[in-house]
Amino acid sequence: MALIVQKYGGTSVGDVDRIIRVAQRVAQYVSVGHQVVVVVSAMSGETNRLTELGQAISDGQPVPREMDVLTASGEQVTIALLSMALQRIGVGAQSFLADQVAMRTNNTHGRARIESIDTEPLKTVICNGIVPVVAGFQGVNAAGDITTLGRGGSDTSAVALAAALQADECEICTDVDGVYTADPRIVQTAQRMSSITFEEMLELASLGSKVLHPRSVEFAGRYTVPLRVLSTFEDGPGTLITTEKVDMERPIVAGIAHTNDEAKVTVSGVPDTPGIASKILGPVSAANIEVDMIVQNTGIDGLTDFTFTVKRADYSVVMKILQTVVEAIGARGLSGDNEISKVSIVGVGMRSHAGVATRMFDALAAENINIQMISTSEIKISVVIAERYVELAVRTLHTEFELDETASV
Amino acid sequence: MALIVQKYGGTSVGDVDRIIRVAQRVAQYVSVGHQVVVVVSAMSGETNRLTELGQAISDGQPVPREMDVLTASGEQVTIALLSMALQRIGVGAQSFLADQVAMRTNNTHGRARIESIDTEPLKTVICNGIVPVVAGFQGVNAAGDITTLGRGGSDTSAVALAAALQADECEICTDVDGVYTADPRIVQTAQRMSSITFEEMLELASLGSKVLHPRSVEFAGRYTVPLRVLSTFEDGPGTLITTEKVDMERPIVAGIAHTNDEAKVTVSGVPDTPGIASKILGPVSAANIEVDMIVQNTGIDGLTDFTFTVKRADYSVVMKILQTVVEAIGARGLSGDNEISKVSIVGVGMRSHAGVATRMFDALAAENINIQMISTSEIKISVVIAERYVELAVRTLHTEFELDETASV
Repeated sequence: MALIVQKYGGTSVGDVDRIIRVAQRVAQYVSVGHQVVVVVSAMSGETNRLTELGQAISDGQPVPREMDVLTASGEQVTIALLSMALQRIGVGAQSFLADQVAMRTNNTHGRARIESIDTEPLKTVICNGIVPVVAGFQGVNAAGDITTLGRGGSDTSAVALAAALQADECEICTDVDGVYTADPRIVQTAQRMSSITFEEMLELASLGSKVLHPRSVEFAGRYTVPLRVLSTFEDGPGTLITTEKVDMERPIVAGIAHTNDEAKVTVSGVPDTPGIASKILGPVSAANIEVDMIVQNTGIDGLTDFTFTVKRADYSVVMKILQTVVEAIGARGLSGDNEISKVSIVGVGMRSHAGVATRMFDALAAENINIQMISTSEIKISVVIAERYVELAVRTLHTEFELDETASV
Repeated sequence: MALIVQKYGGTSVGDVDRIIRVAQRVAQYVSVGHQVVVVVSAMSGETNRLTELGQAISDGQPVPREMDVLTASGEQVTIALLSMALQRIGVGAQSFLADQVAMRTNNTHGRARIESIDTEPLKTVICNGIVPVVAGFQGVNAAGDITTLGRGGSDTSAVALAAALQADECEICTDVDGVYTADPRIVQTAQRMSSITFEEMLELASLGSKVLHPRSVEFAGRYTVPLRVLSTFEDGPGTLITTEKVDMERPIVAGIAHTNDEAKVTVSGVPDTPGIASKILGPVSAANIEVDMIVQNTGIDGLTDFTFTVKRADYSVVMKILQTVVEAIGARGLSGDNEISKVSIVGVGMRSHAGVATRMFDALAAENINIQMISTSEIKISVVIAERYVELAVRTLHTEFELDETASV
């Protein structure tokens, strides 16, 4: 008998029939003696619908406190429906809103961080053989106001509950059957990984693999909650995210990630003086725009070029902001490109293997793919390339690092 | 400067444009110095949509606790949207869920009764010039679970808040411009009443006038909260419901109400012994079916006929229940009719005017309308007639009691 936290995403609870199938899946776990705590997202499309209502009524400037009240209603619907579906098939169940488990967060509406959870109400019902069905995505601040954790926040809710309850495993039940070595839509020979470390998963999640929300992986790693990604509606072991290296023979690179929604901006001929970076990036951050990669070359003649990437949706706003900045700091020029992609290789094995970067760059060069920017960490290397080469680059690197299914069998 | 509680129903907040217009209406009140507390229902159609989801997932047997969690999400959406719309046009606003105003109810899910309200949080924001936007329809029980007050419950929420805040007036803003002497769709000469007493309104509301929820009128009467029914989107004074008789020259009968969704059931040849009524009605109540009018004739030869009315939707269930009862108590027969209507005349003037009943019965007889059942109270007389005569009966009585617009001008 194990205590398992299961999180079901929006597509898994997308309509009445799917919610009934989720209830049946939970019932199977209960019938073999497991204790189950369920966390659910809003029905697919519902959060978008609510967000659009809020945007429409406020001319695109919704009040963050009220936006959270609005969007949190989506999860309220699914906890009630799943609780009813469970009871209908004879499984005791009870819904819990964020305030009913005291899912306390800070006050940052729209992307709040969990601070504490009161597990007593949950433990009581679990001991009585009842399945708690908890609203994901939402929390409550010190004032008792509803907060939300941001996109993908239900993953984080589930991991936080699993950590607080010291659960044996946290299952992220979704519409894919695990984490792949690359996007299977691009690389036909991509394989499902049976296991991956928290660090690798965190890099992959941050670098564009949409299977898990990065914050949930960070949380799981910090509290060493064994995390499993698996399919809601198909059998299979999925991918276990853990600290242990189950597979000693795994390749140097665990997986390839890529993103397609990037843009880069270059401020050229910048006076190479202290504090110039913050003069450029300060106004960008002030507009709540997230900057990803940053590259600054060594200056010649006291001038330097400063390049960074942002989400493509923010590109035009950033260019507008920087036109003012360029004048203010006396830079020579401003240029940009919103048809770029980022391709990354990730693997803890890179720590102990020299030459991985060279191997990556050589493989791309052999395909005539020009590298525009490079960013590295201990367990990943990311490159920015022209968007039109992204599929080719991913497939090339997948083969180069021996991840193809046929190669590994 | 007055403190006014305004309640907006589902059609008034039915889409983004309407919510914006409601915000503009609230802003007008604020701009002339009033303090306003707003109570809103769910967007029109939303409660039905959620209820149907709950019915579908539970094979028609939804869990009451979870049904309340489900349906209460509808009001959560509108308080957030209206708060944003108000702030967008420069009116400070803040949404409040039931638990944030400690709208404590008993534990009867689906038709909970309000027990207490904590007005302190509201008073604080009102004093700061902020408009509180409170979720109608919902409450919270002692365990902290969401409850709902039943159909039309937002009216009751508004009146309860007005009573607790000792507001100067409670406005029920809706899609009609007041309370009419009869349904204007049936009686073209029906007039809007400028005022009506709580007692009359309570009878009218209970007898089929859908403008106000009966419980809200009862509540307003008990705490003498001046209640006004008026149009959200048209100017006009509406109808004031109050204790004072503003119009001394008003006619004996204030209004005519009717319902079309009735059915009657007769158990005939019942042994006329003590306790027989409860033997017949007990199983009906046990099935949670509401009985309206009850008539029992004096028995002949120790036998009596027992007739009562129920909602038409409950007719087939009641007939099934009574087939068993008829055998158990040795009654002779069971018959029913689900094509009946109830027509009622209401007016506090009836207390001091003899012969009102006779006048009513004569007027109906003159049109060859047969009366099947009669029920009276101090300020109303209801009759059950064949459904096909209902429009004729309402028009006849409207004229008989001098309510036609031309007659009164």
